[in-house]
Amino acid sequence: MRISELSAETNVPIPSIKYYVREGLLEPGTPLGGRQADYSDVHVTRLRLIRALLDVVGLPIAKVRRILELIDEPGDDLFTTLGEAVDALPPYAQGSETDAAWPRARAVIERLGWTFDERYAATGQLERALAAVEGTGIPLSEERLDTYAAAARQVAAFDIAHMPEVPQNPAAAIEYSVLGTALYEPVLVALRRLAHQHLAAEALGAPDPADS
Amino acid sequence: MRISELSAETNVPIPSIKYYVREGLLEPGTPLGGRQADYSDVHVTRLRLIRALLDVVGLPIAKVRRILELIDEPGDDLFTTLGEAVDALPPYAQGSETDAAWPRARAVIERLGWTFDERYAATGQLERALAAVEGTGIPLSEERLDTYAAAARQVAAFDIAHMPEVPQNPAAAIEYSVLGTALYEPVLVALRRLAHQHLAAEALGAPDPADS
Repeated sequence: MRISELSAETNVPIPSIKYYVREGLLEPGTPLGGRQADYSDVHVTRLRLIRALLDVVGLPIAKVRRILELIDEPGDDLFTTLGEAVDALPPYAQGSETDAAWPRARAVIERLGWTFDERYAATGQLERALAAVEGTGIPLSEERLDTYAAAARQVAAFDIAHMPEVPQNPAAAIEYSVLGTALYEPVLVALRRLAHQHLAAEALGAPDPADS
Repeated sequence: MRISELSAETNVPIPSIKYYVREGLLEPGTPLGGRQADYSDVHVTRLRLIRALLDVVGLPIAKVRRILELIDEPGDDLFTTLGEAVDALPPYAQGSETDAAWPRARAVIERLGWTFDERYAATGQLERALAAVEGTGIPLSEERLDTYAAAARQVAAFDIAHMPEVPQNPAAAIEYSVLGTALYEPVLVALRRLAHQHLAAEALGAPDPADS
């Protein structure tokens, strides 16, 4: 298809398509002579992913490029590749973090019996979250952490059980891991807030929304 | 105590304390004559909360002021007051959202048997999260939503069960709700990512971190 058809099919303006090609996110079309080029369904699929990562997830171009590189060349160690792809998502490590000992995260992860690996971005992310709680003086008891960890593990078990078969289709598994991590998180936290309200209404007695 | 002692006790610089007083977040000290004023433990407690909301949670001044107003005058309808305080947290509604019908959120909330109220900020938050998923074409099945909702509800049940007694101590309940919502969310999402890695390592075979 011509670039105008690709644009119509994906709802992406032609200048944006050209920009993604210049930035190395999208392969150029096959030259047809003159200034024309031919695009295929591969371009349609790739453009949808680029837009999802840039506009819906909101990643910077460099992080999108990194994810696409991993999709194009996943290598043999797919566990590490999946981890690197997910690490392209925020929150990003802070520049001042030279000490990667993560004492708070290590204590929690080891108590849960999970694998502690200081190279996982999520390990530093947990450390910062725990340090922030500590800084405000509200308690984060072991009982609360166990409740949260059990809930996180249930969700993660569902996510991993529904991951596309990695050895057969690493590109689909990487896309699923990145988009699923980024896009389902806001669903989970919105549901937590709604569950708070549902349960607080039961505990405190809420005015009936139909009355207002 | 003098302002210098208040500053030493809370580790907040004197110019910041004066700024919070000017912005109406902190009550002025009791005048002692001359340019001196006397501050009490009430100021220490309030300053710690102000710093937690501004620096740790990262709220803008106007949102901090709103939360403090609710703490100072919680009124009789404490369920609504708690909801308003939590609504001072991001993500904030988008200006373009004039249609508050929230069709995606309504379908999910009603299927779960929770209370649908379009005035809850979390209802719009769920709608936006579901719309984003829809926009990328990766499926969010009822089975996945039920798994996520069950996990969110477990976490929320723990949170609500450990809330300070609201009628006796509304200020503590508001502080708990705001800080607990804001600060435990990053813990939950970090734990989800770590659980992903723990379970993916089991499923895919991960290199032993001790080997590297």
